Amino acid sequence: MTEALRVGIAGLGTVGAGTLKILTERADLLAERCGRAIKVVAVSARNKGKDRGIRLDGFKWVENPIELANDPAIDLIVENIGGSEGVARRLVEAALTNGKAVVTANKALIAHHGVQLARLAEEHNAVLAFEAAVAGGIPIIKSLRDGLSANRFRRIAGILNGTCNYILTTMWEAKYGFDEVLKDAQARGYAEAEPSFDIDGIDTAHKIAILASLAYGTPPAIDKVYVEGIRGIRLRDMEFADELGYAIKLLGVATMTERGLQQRVHPCMVRKDSPLGAVGGVYNAVQVEGDACGTVLFEGHGAGAGPTASSVVADILDIARGVNYKPLTLAVKTLKKINTVGMEALRCSYYLRLAVIDEPGVLAEITALFKKEKISLRSFIQHSHNPEETVQLVLTTHETPESAMLSAVKAIGALGSVTEPPCMIRIEHL
Amino acid sequence: MTEALRVGIAGLGTVGAGTLKILTERADLLAERCGRAIKVVAVSARNKGKDRGIRLDGFKWVENPIELANDPAIDLIVENIGGSEGVARRLVEAALTNGKAVVTANKALIAHHGVQLARLAEEHNAVLAFEAAVAGGIPIIKSLRDGLSANRFRRIAGILNGTCNYILTTMWEAKYGFDEVLKDAQARGYAEAEPSFDIDGIDTAHKIAILASLAYGTPPAIDKVYVEGIRGIRLRDMEFADELGYAIKLLGVATMTERGLQQRVHPCMVRKDSPLGAVGGVYNAVQVEGDACGTVLFEGHGAGAGPTASSVVADILDIARGVNYKPLTLAVKTLKKINTVGMEALRCSYYLRLAVIDEPGVLAEITALFKKEKISLRSFIQHSHNPEETVQLVLTTHETPESAMLSAVKAIGALGSVTEPPCMIRIEHL
Repeated sequence: MTEALRVGIAGLGTVGAGTLKILTERADLLAERCGRAIKVVAVSARNKGKDRGIRLDGFKWVENPIELANDPAIDLIVENIGGSEGVARRLVEAALTNGKAVVTANKALIAHHGVQLARLAEEHNAVLAFEAAVAGGIPIIKSLRDGLSANRFRRIAGILNGTCNYILTTMWEAKYGFDEVLKDAQARGYAEAEPSFDIDGIDTAHKIAILASLAYGTPPAIDKVYVEGIRGIRLRDMEFADELGYAIKLLGVATMTERGLQQRVHPCMVRKDSPLGAVGGVYNAVQVEGDACGTVLFEGHGAGAGPTASSVVADILDIARGVNYKPLTLAVKTLKKINTVGMEALRCSYYLRLAVIDEPGVLAEITALFKKEKISLRSFIQHSHNPEETVQLVLTTHETPESAMLSAVKAIGALGSVTEPPCMIRIEHL
Repeated sequence: MTEALRVGIAGLGTVGAGTLKILTERADLLAERCGRAIKVVAVSARNKGKDRGIRLDGFKWVENPIELANDPAIDLIVENIGGSEGVARRLVEAALTNGKAVVTANKALIAHHGVQLARLAEEHNAVLAFEAAVAGGIPIIKSLRDGLSANRFRRIAGILNGTCNYILTTMWEAKYGFDEVLKDAQARGYAEAEPSFDIDGIDTAHKIAILASLAYGTPPAIDKVYVEGIRGIRLRDMEFADELGYAIKLLGVATMTERGLQQRVHPCMVRKDSPLGAVGGVYNAVQVEGDACGTVLFEGHGAGAGPTASSVVADILDIARGVNYKPLTLAVKTLKKINTVGMEALRCSYYLRLAVIDEPGVLAEITALFKKEKISLRSFIQHSHNPEETVQLVLTTHETPESAMLSAVKAIGALGSVTEPPCMIRIEHL
């Protein structure tokens, strides 16, 4: 058996502590699986005294995590500090520069600095692995890189943020509004006190940018991702969605269109009996469409100590086995700059909910505006019919260009008979 | 860039031709992904003249596939001949002995001779890879080996045979009997003229034996798999299942029980809204339960040229990249002989359908026999009630030992008031 792989862990939050626990409590099994002992030698965190349910006295305690990167007795560093800048970034850069392997769950870091870090890893013959950065315990990064590597990818679509999926699922199941459910999720620890990162879609954007990079062999382009979160979703829209056969999910979607790569994060209506439509609660799922494999679905826990640490430790075992993939699969110099397209290139079906004064001629006004943009309507729902009161009018369209739809929605929103800003949700056919 | 990886393909049926097509039509993309050109240099099949939709004139044609194993101009052999013995086995043995890499979709070969072939591969420092042997385009073998390698596995349960799943799905959707649907599946090419291998569960047994071997680090033990196929399933049972909230699926299940590894293939009732319950048609799906990752589901196409070739080519790219996993993940000498247990160790809930003469006292007789075996009933359905006629009586039990259930069923089947052999189906909680 080769020498032990010596690990330093920076950050002992949920994932760091979970990783430490797995590495220590099943050391023999892991050594058997990778042919080599994995030995945690040093740890670093903000608060040494905090009760994490694990004894730390067998490990060297390091106050400044950067020291781990300079310790010749460490081969691999697990970065669990988080954030795209600051200590996390400096630690990873220093470790790679010193030829040490780095395993991280830090999607912001990879989405923003993936290319720079990959180049650093290549220059110093170091490994940089981040399976845990996307979809927790689901091995989606390895699957895109290895298992599905024969494919040209048509689309990658995923429920990539457990907080959002929990909120949307709970709104629908408990029939509560967004704000109430968010508060409840915060109380349960499913959402952060500052929830913007999750509910405004930023976290999902990081993840889809990483998946798109791997699938299409291009640098992660987080600034090219269209991002729209779930704050605008009303329970009422879920009820209409259900009536139309849909569920509302926050999806990250990467598609190769004729004009280039499109990446977007926004609430979608998806058939409720489709694989992604059926994924509830804190679960994550990714649907990969390849030209050889067809559609492959991966579903599992997207967060939490066990699932995320499962992926962190899997990366560690890979490295112990000597697997040395390029961080972004392709060597940095062969990454392609490919055209990217924004939402103007999208064609899809749309759901539109309007609050209108129920008086004769309103529907005619609205349909005239659709006609003007050459948008073909698919269905129409109006539940109550109380003259002179505000009623909810729901329309769905056939496939239509986003630009035409936006023009129509703008014009419709300006009508005197429309009493609230229109609610538009894209329908994704999966 | 390193020298090209030179490939010989033996067998040009669906999978072989699909592999050849992918390797030739996107050679540049694949070379980019693995950092090395993949070059098909020779092919072998039974019939040179057959139209496969691909030109073969650029490749050396070899009549006897074994010659590929002895050709110094070949680095890797794709074995698509099939069968656990004969030419396929001799070819793989010869290739590994000569230090050549082998990629195969041959589950029978791996399930029966996996250990011997893995040993041969180790001795000659050759790679043996078989992602395509289980679940077609779903990267389940790599996921067990790499992505989920941090886990202790509680259970692996899968819909692993597309033919069976197609038959069961079609019976239910079209409301046809087993024999009719089998004939239809044969006409469509979804079932073989000699369908026993699929519908009697043998193919599923090969696959679950391979997955169990990888998950539990033990030699594949095909002779320890309990196997029961789907010939006995009636549409009537599907209707009752649906009424009870279940769908009927042929599952391969491997579980680590307290007393040892249990492997079984049989029809199961699973909640119709569970991930596996919702998998229809020719799709395959595997549910992996790990102690760290939790439940992870993989779903995709289990067969066909594209999906299977997708996995074959993924293995080829791995080998081109220099990835050198042990064929059974662990080195042969570290594979563990673990206790195996048979169906006598199973505890589950059961569905039992009885055709009984509807006369007073019958139910009392039956429930007395359940009571004698200390089996607790969970539900009871009897649709019609026409005195003196045969009626269908359906019972489900709480969790109970298989042995007690079999005794009860035997005694119930012997009752004068029971007019047909009882139909017992196990209920799997997923």
